[in-house]
Amino acid sequence: MYFPSWLSQLYRGLSRPIRRTTQPIWGSLYRSLLQSSQRRIPEFSSFVVRTNTCGELRSSHLGQEVTLCGWIQYRRQNTFLVLRDFDGLVQVIIPQDESAASVKKILCEAPVESVVQVSGTVISRPAGQENPKMPTGEIEIKVKTAELLNACKKLPFEIKNFVKKTEALRLQYRYLDLRSFQMQYNLRLRSQMVMKMREYLCNLHGFVDIETPTLFKRTPGGAKEFLVPSREPGKFYSLPQSPQQFKQLLMVGGLDRYFQVARCYRDEGSRPDRQPEFTQIDIEMSFVDQTGIQSLIEGLLQYSWPNDKDPVVVPFPTMTFAEVLATYGTDKPDTRFGMKKYLKRKDIESIRNFAADHFNQEILPVFLNANRNWNSPVANFIMESQRLELIRLMETQEEDVVLLTAGEHNKACSLLGKLRLECADLLETRGVVLRDPTLFSFLWVVDFPLFLPKEENPRELESAHHPFTAPHPSDIHLLYTEPKKARSQHYDLVLNGNEIGGGSIRIHNAELQRYILATLLKEDVKMLSHLLQALDYGAPPHGGIALGLDRLICLVTGSPSIRDVIAFPKSFRGHDLMSNTPDSVPPEELKPYHIRVSKPTDSKAERAH
Amino acid sequence: MYFPSWLSQLYRGLSRPIRRTTQPIWGSLYRSLLQSSQRRIPEFSSFVVRTNTCGELRSSHLGQEVTLCGWIQYRRQNTFLVLRDFDGLVQVIIPQDESAASVKKILCEAPVESVVQVSGTVISRPAGQENPKMPTGEIEIKVKTAELLNACKKLPFEIKNFVKKTEALRLQYRYLDLRSFQMQYNLRLRSQMVMKMREYLCNLHGFVDIETPTLFKRTPGGAKEFLVPSREPGKFYSLPQSPQQFKQLLMVGGLDRYFQVARCYRDEGSRPDRQPEFTQIDIEMSFVDQTGIQSLIEGLLQYSWPNDKDPVVVPFPTMTFAEVLATYGTDKPDTRFGMKKYLKRKDIESIRNFAADHFNQEILPVFLNANRNWNSPVANFIMESQRLELIRLMETQEEDVVLLTAGEHNKACSLLGKLRLECADLLETRGVVLRDPTLFSFLWVVDFPLFLPKEENPRELESAHHPFTAPHPSDIHLLYTEPKKARSQHYDLVLNGNEIGGGSIRIHNAELQRYILATLLKEDVKMLSHLLQALDYGAPPHGGIALGLDRLICLVTGSPSIRDVIAFPKSFRGHDLMSNTPDSVPPEELKPYHIRVSKPTDSKAERAH
Repeated sequence: MYFPSWLSQLYRGLSRPIRRTTQPIWGSLYRSLLQSSQRRIPEFSSFVVRTNTCGELRSSHLGQEVTLCGWIQYRRQNTFLVLRDFDGLVQVIIPQDESAASVKKILCEAPVESVVQVSGTVISRPAGQENPKMPTGEIEIKVKTAELLNACKKLPFEIKNFVKKTEALRLQYRYLDLRSFQMQYNLRLRSQMVMKMREYLCNLHGFVDIETPTLFKRTPGGAKEFLVPSREPGKFYSLPQSPQQFKQLLMVGGLDRYFQVARCYRDEGSRPDRQPEFTQIDIEMSFVDQTGIQSLIEGLLQYSWPNDKDPVVVPFPTMTFAEVLATYGTDKPDTRFGMKKYLKRKDIESIRNFAADHFNQEILPVFLNANRNWNSPVANFIMESQRLELIRLMETQEEDVVLLTAGEHNKACSLLGKLRLECADLLETRGVVLRDPTLFSFLWVVDFPLFLPKEENPRELESAHHPFTAPHPSDIHLLYTEPKKARSQHYDLVLNGNEIGGGSIRIHNAELQRYILATLLKEDVKMLSHLLQALDYGAPPHGGIALGLDRLICLVTGSPSIRDVIAFPKSFRGHDLMSNTPDSVPPEELKPYHIRVSKPTDSKAERAH
Repeated sequence: MYFPSWLSQLYRGLSRPIRRTTQPIWGSLYRSLLQSSQRRIPEFSSFVVRTNTCGELRSSHLGQEVTLCGWIQYRRQNTFLVLRDFDGLVQVIIPQDESAASVKKILCEAPVESVVQVSGTVISRPAGQENPKMPTGEIEIKVKTAELLNACKKLPFEIKNFVKKTEALRLQYRYLDLRSFQMQYNLRLRSQMVMKMREYLCNLHGFVDIETPTLFKRTPGGAKEFLVPSREPGKFYSLPQSPQQFKQLLMVGGLDRYFQVARCYRDEGSRPDRQPEFTQIDIEMSFVDQTGIQSLIEGLLQYSWPNDKDPVVVPFPTMTFAEVLATYGTDKPDTRFGMKKYLKRKDIESIRNFAADHFNQEILPVFLNANRNWNSPVANFIMESQRLELIRLMETQEEDVVLLTAGEHNKACSLLGKLRLECADLLETRGVVLRDPTLFSFLWVVDFPLFLPKEENPRELESAHHPFTAPHPSDIHLLYTEPKKARSQHYDLVLNGNEIGGGSIRIHNAELQRYILATLLKEDVKMLSHLLQALDYGAPPHGGIALGLDRLICLVTGSPSIRDVIAFPKSFRGHDLMSNTPDSVPPEELKPYHIRVSKPTDSKAERAH
């Protein structure tokens, strides 16, 4: 029997090209996720009518009577069909003898993607017809009975990875899209990884999983918080952006070690690759310092890392904010690659244009030839001693291209950081692999500034992260003299150029917290009076971190968008395309909440009035 | 050294009187939660400065140099203090020699509930001064160094269990209330139990933990759903009451076995012992029947049951809805007790008054004396043969009291069910233990009616549970003839008189679902078109259940209210008393959401207008 070639293609479609690791194969890959030395394989067929999953059958099952339930993936000339469940595919032989006419009728007439239950015997495939690319490729099922559990109508698109679908269509029929290998793999990997994180935190290190409210009070300046009207006129709940206040209050409450896989909310309007609700691994500990949190997280990622990826190497390197900005021109550098080579002259022109267009800034390229002379207009403007000093500082080598710019430090660094990524893009189009998708390069960035000048009024300060961040122990005196120069005990975890986590040691001293909130940040402390009061009543020193789960899983699975690691994501406009959400609500349902809709035209009219 | 007697009282205060099991003791009980045969004790002191927890020190630690962090629970005459952390208490000797003057000063001056770090040696208590009631009662700490980590101001109440506090005060200072033994125990037991449930579902039975959105579309008739205004004029999200639609769509998507510890929302206004947000263990499976779900849940509870309670015995008994109503007069009977005895004549009067006041119904008591004669006014109205038949049916015994009523079946049963609980209350005030708090009596209730007459219009039907519930296989034909008589495949799990879970086998046939929604329930199917469409595209047979986690943990811990098993609960008016939530919002923050507050006076004015 010929096994169709598209079936092996099926497994390739959606996944990004991956070097070094083998292609994911339905059935084998998910199982490999589960098979670590300590971990037993779950009983996938407990409590149900099937005896086995489609994907688990091997030669070791030969002769066994099995009952399988699944979807008809493919049927060939009424002779066999391929049955699919979450665990994989198996070939089912359609009986041809007269006595089995009813079984044949069911299996031949059911449309593709119909759900059937079959019972029969596991037999060997005839010699020469084994399919080594298919985990169940040595066996097939000789069917005795079959039942059509549900027929499938004509589908809006084929559930085959190589059939390209727009994302809008995938989201509209998400329940069909979820049947794809890639979505099954992503969601199961996510579940496994979170489970391992829980084991690490809860079972190995005594963390307590505590749920915190999502109906809460708006935070000062919480302009990105969704509002929830209450039944009290003019009173609203807010959906918080993080459990920040609660996790700190839990430490004051002596819970010692808290974690939560926390749903968080942020209303950023339409922003690509952001979701109005997202999930973070939220952690807080008492009596801990920065090093303690870093070790905890390194251990957490090492423990929960999928078995089908290269193991995570710890400890992760650490750089200060000043260093990463000077070296990489960003606070979330992709540290998988360092140098930039192989640029052509015409590339340099496009880079200069990019800098001029995006940063309104001049870029001066320097080409170093074999005798280390500079082939650049810059050469005419600087002294020989300066030139040699630059060569020494930049550790340049023969055939290097150096891009120089001048200007305000942060701005110039940012530009060069962007150019570095632009160059990487350029080089990768030339076939130079700089950013290995199988490589996971973690980096801690520390010693951030505690405050930044406010965008609206640069003479005022705002928190670089949030106002509960403790100052760097060496810089506390600066709070009273030059607060702008004070560094914080905030730390970011960066993976392949993405910020996947951030946290800090918090302020546990009420007086210091009041001074920062009221005097330095000029915030209304009334809204945080409960937190300030809590710090007065024996708050332990504490700190924590939150990992962005959606982004982390997106990177681990190599998915193009976080929407690919969320079961029911919103579109980038915040819509659920399957159910048409958000939707209008009859006025009588607004009444208990004492709100009325004011259409934009109304408010225009109001203003005119 | 005398160990203060209030310290042992401390451990008794909040917990309900419990027979058969020993009193919970801080430190020992939480550890016993963790010590099952398979389970290693977590490392509670990893990543932090302490070497040990206060509560773990025993004679086996004698001579060890330890560093501890904790709260000053108590200090006696500047000679010793008791240090507390989440794990327990330990006695710390304040050094008296001149060379340790600075240590003495710190430890003597820090107010109670201040946070300190001490280092020293674990030594034996002098002979005769051991405290057998204290898990660490054989040892004490000889301190060498001490550091005040944070001083505590004067507290609004003492953190001692025997100090009675109003619940409002406890909620306002929740971060202090959380330091109590009982809250620590409740939250840690909850975390442990949920973790074990996850192990059972995920690691043992292949369930996938999948997060579903909480910003969704309102469901038809979803009048109890909180609304979340979006940035599109007049368009709202809803916070769903359960992930019902999503879990079914996941089955259509081939996820096979889903679970989620799901946050749900219900706006019921002010109702005692309800929370606007609550948590359920949400489960759905494909290819499963009622028995399968029941076995799954029995195994789940058995596996996750705390080690300090009597083990759960499975299978749980099952009764039909008709049976429980006829036998117990409720669909959630407390099956810990059966008979009612020891009633006095005057009790009967109060019971008759209760029935008249609450149900406007007459109750006829029958007192059976030694010769089985009826001492009752009823005796005069019924024939001897009826009397004997009743005696046979009720299996009455000598000295029994029988309460008789007549009337419409459901109403009469309900009344008698309420009276049964009233009698139990009465008897328990007389010292008869009917409802053993250490006994956990589970019961499945099955074969509920599929529909109920609508309250507003009894000639129309509404779903007894929800419209996706499958009819009982034997009753499908009734849908087309006498739908009121059709039973469903809904099942409730009852524990000690509380419904702690409910679920059903779902309809997977689109045509049947359309018929029930449109023809029988007269719902607008447009709002559910995505679900109906999904059923058309190869939906597998599926079913599920949801366990109310807050209620379950409340019963397991014997707490008087679900607020005692939630870290930051709302008051029964839906307020967070700590932060003053919900709160007013400046009008400019409402603008992006195109809503305006319409004060009740406004709408009155409107109506007048």
